[in-house]
Amino acid sequence: MATVPLISEQQATGKVKDIFDDIKRTFNLPFVPNLFRAMANHPAYLESSWSRFKVIMGPGTLDPRTKEFLALAVSTVNNCQYCIHAHTAGLRRMGVSDEELLEALAVVDLFMGINKFLDGLRVESDLT
Amino acid sequence: MATVPLISEQQATGKVKDIFDDIKRTFNLPFVPNLFRAMANHPAYLESSWSRFKVIMGPGTLDPRTKEFLALAVSTVNNCQYCIHAHTAGLRRMGVSDEELLEALAVVDLFMGINKFLDGLRVESDLT
Amino acid sequence: MATVPLISEQQATGKVKDIFDDIKRTFNLPFVPNLFRAMANHPAYLESSWSRFKVIMGPGTLDPRTKEFLALAVSTVNNCQYCIHAHTAGLRRMGVSDEELLEALAVVDLFMGINKFLDGLRVESDLT
Amino acid sequence: MATVPLISEQQATGKVKDIFDDIKRTFNLPFVPNLFRAMANHPAYLESSWSRFKVIMGPGTLDPRTKEFLALAVSTVNNCQYCIHAHTAGLRRMGVSDEELLEALAVVDLFMGINKFLDGLRVESDLT
Amino acid sequence: MATVPLISEQQATGKVKDIFDDIKRTFNLPFVPNLFRAMANHPAYLESSWSRFKVIMGPGTLDPRTKEFLALAVSTVNNCQYCIHAHTAGLRRMGVSDEELLEALAVVDLFMGINKFLDGLRVESDLT
Amino acid sequence: MATVPLISEQQATGKVKDIFDDIKRTFNLPFVPNLFRAMANHPAYLESSWSRFKVIMGPGTLDPRTKEFLALAVSTVNNCQYCIHAHTAGLRRMGVSDEELLEALAVVDLFMGINKFLDGLRVESDLT
Repeated sequence: MATVPLISEQQATGKVKDIFDDIKRTFNLPFVPNLFRAMANHPAYLESSWSRFKVIMGPGTLDPRTKEFLALAVSTVNNCQYCIHAHTAGLRRMGVSDEELLEALAVVDLFMGINKFLDGLRVESDLT
Repeated sequence: MATVPLISEQQATGKVKDIFDDIKRTFNLPFVPNLFRAMANHPAYLESSWSRFKVIMGPGTLDPRTKEFLALAVSTVNNCQYCIHAHTAGLRRMGVSDEELLEALAVVDLFMGINKFLDGLRVESDLT
Repeated sequence: MATVPLISEQQATGKVKDIFDDIKRTFNLPFVPNLFRAMANHPAYLESSWSRFKVIMGPGTLDPRTKEFLALAVSTVNNCQYCIHAHTAGLRRMGVSDEELLEALAVVDLFMGINKFLDGLRVESDLT
Repeated sequence: MATVPLISEQQATGKVKDIFDDIKRTFNLPFVPNLFRAMANHPAYLESSWSRFKVIMGPGTLDPRTKEFLALAVSTVNNCQYCIHAHTAGLRRMGVSDEELLEALAVVDLFMGINKFLDGLRVESDLT
Repeated sequence: MATVPLISEQQATGKVKDIFDDIKRTFNLPFVPNLFRAMANHPAYLESSWSRFKVIMGPGTLDPRTKEFLALAVSTVNNCQYCIHAHTAGLRRMGVSDEELLEALAVVDLFMGINKFLDGLRVESDLT
Repeated sequence: MATVPLISEQQATGKVKDIFDDIKRTFNLPFVPNLFRAMANHPAYLESSWSRFKVIMGPGTLDPRTKEFLALAVSTVNNCQYCIHAHTAGLRRMGVSDEELLEALAVVDLFMGINKFLDGLRVESDLT
C-alpha cells in the first residue's frame, strides 16, 4: 500500500479535477493512474509534472514508439514494476509483438553487460 | 588505462584474428574497438560474445535505430562513458538530429524520475 | 523468506543478547528488527555494525530529521522495500506530513532525471 | 565535451532568452548553467522543466536545506559528478560545514550497505 | 506473470528442444528454468546466449564457487529476486554455509557504502 | 578534488593518528589511503568504520580472495573508479592473472544482462 493517500477522482476539486479529466482524455483511460493520484497530494507539482509529461511524450521529432521503448528500457534498468507494466502495455497497444519485445530486452541484456565489463576493467573509449 | 592488456591487431592470431577482421568488416571500421581488444584476453568469451552481439544487433523484427536508442538509454542509466559515446556516434551515423537526441534524453529524464517517485512512495500498479 | 535464519530473541545469548536489548532500548521498540536478526548470524559483524549505526545515526552536527530523509532518499534510489517502509515510518514518528513526504519525493524525482539527462549527453560541470 | 551543442546566452532568443534571464536571477548567478544550455536545444522541454524545477525547489513545506541534502544524496547514488559539485556548492552557500557534509555522506554509506544486505538475503520487513 | 509467453518443453521443437535438453542435463535439473523459457521466444538469441553462458560459467581458470559468489553479488546490487534465489541455491548446493553467506553479504554491505562515500565526496584514488 | 579536506598524517593526532598507524600496518602500506583521510573529518565515524572494516575483511570462514572478488564486483556495478583500482590492485597482489580477471568480469557481464532481461519481462523464479 502506498505510504501517502492516493487522491480519488471524487476527492479531486478545482485544478486537480481539471488535470484528472485531461489525463483520462489524453490516455483514453476510464480511470486516473495511481501515479497521478499520488502526485495530487501536491497540486502544483502534479500540474507542472503533467504539463511537462505532455511536452516530452507528445508530438515532436522522435516517434511515440521509440519513446515508449526508451521508457521501457529505463524502467527495466531501474526495475520499476509499475512502469514496466505500464510501458509494456503501451507498446502492446501500439502493436508491438512478442518478438519485438524480446529483441528489445535482448538489447538491454547485451549492453547492461558490456557497460559493466568496460567499466570494471577501465577500458577507455576509442572515440574520445 | 585498462587494468588488463588490450590485445592489438598485430598480436592477434588464429580465431582472434578472424574475429577482429569480422568486427572491422561488420562495423565498417578501420580499427578494432577497445571493447573487443579487452575481450580478446579470453578468446572463447570473445568468440561467443561477438557471435551473440551479431544476433542481437543484426537483422530481426526490431529496427536498428530503435536498438541503438535502447543501447543509449541503458548506457545512460549506467553512466558508461564509453558506450554513451559509441551509441551517440552510432545514432549520428543513422542521421539522428540534435532535436531527436534531446527528445530521447528527455524521455530518460522523465521516467528516471517517475520510476523513483513511484517506488519511494510504494505506489502500486493499476494494471496488476 | 530470508535465505538465512533470522536469529530470534530466544536464541540470542551473550553478546548478541546484549546488543538485541540495546537495539530495542535505542529504537524504543518491543521487538528486534529483522535486519539485526539476520546480522546476528555473524556476531562480530552485528556488533561492529550496530556500534557504527549508533555513531552515524546518533547525536552529531546534522539533525536526525535530515538524516532520516537522506536514508529515505538512498533507499528509494535503491528501491529497498524494507528500508523505504522503515524510514517512512521513522519520518512519520517525527511528525513529517504527507505534503513534506511528497515534496521530498518530488526532489528525488527531479534530480534522478537531471542526473541522467546530464550524463547521457556528457554535459560538463560549470564548476570544475 | 557534450554530444549536443550548448546554447549560449548570445544565441538565445525569445522564450529561451527570457528563461535564461529568469535562471540567472533565480540562482543569483552571472551565467546560465550548462544543464539549461543543453535543455535549450528543445525549448518546450526547457520551459516546462524550468517551471517545474521552480515548483519543486521553491518555497513549500519542506525547507530548502533538506531539499539540497536530498539532491546530494540522489546525485551521490547516481554518481553524477556535475550534480554532486552543484549541490555541494549549494549546501556550502547555505553554510553547511565539513562535519555536516561528512555526517550526510556517512548516512548514505550506512544505508547503501544496509539496503543491499537486506535485499541480498531477502530479509522481509517487520512492518508490512 | 511474465509479459511474454514462457515456452514450455512441450511446445519446444528442433533447435529449441535440443537446447532445453542440454540445459536440463548441464544443470542436472528436471525442468527448464523460466529464464530460458522466456528466451526461447527468440531462438537465435537463446542459442547464442546459452552457448555463451556455458563458456562463461564452464571450466576455466576461475573456480565455479567464486563465479557463483560473483553472480550473487551482481544480482544483489541489481536486487534481482530471481537471480538472488538462483545463485543462493547454487552456492548452497556447493556446500556454502550460513556463515559464509553472511560474510559475503557483509562484504557487499561494506563496499556499497564505501563506493558512494568516496564518489559523493569526489575522493580521488591514491593509485592513479 | 575532494569536496572536504583530506586529513594528512601530519595533521592527525590522538585516536586518528593511532588508527592511521593501524591502517598502514594492516595494509602494509607506506601511506594512508584517501578513503580514510576523508573519513578522518569525523573521527568517531572513522573509528567505527575502520574497526568494522577489519571485522568484515579480516579472518573468517570466507577466504580473502573471494572477498576481494566480491568487492570488485560491487565496485564494478557501482562504477566506482577508486574502488575498482583498489580491488584490482588487491587481487593482483594475491596473484590473480589476466585470465582470471577476465573471467570474473565475464561473469559480471553475464548476470548484469540476465538480471535485467528477467526483470524487464517480469519472469518469475522457478524456486519461490
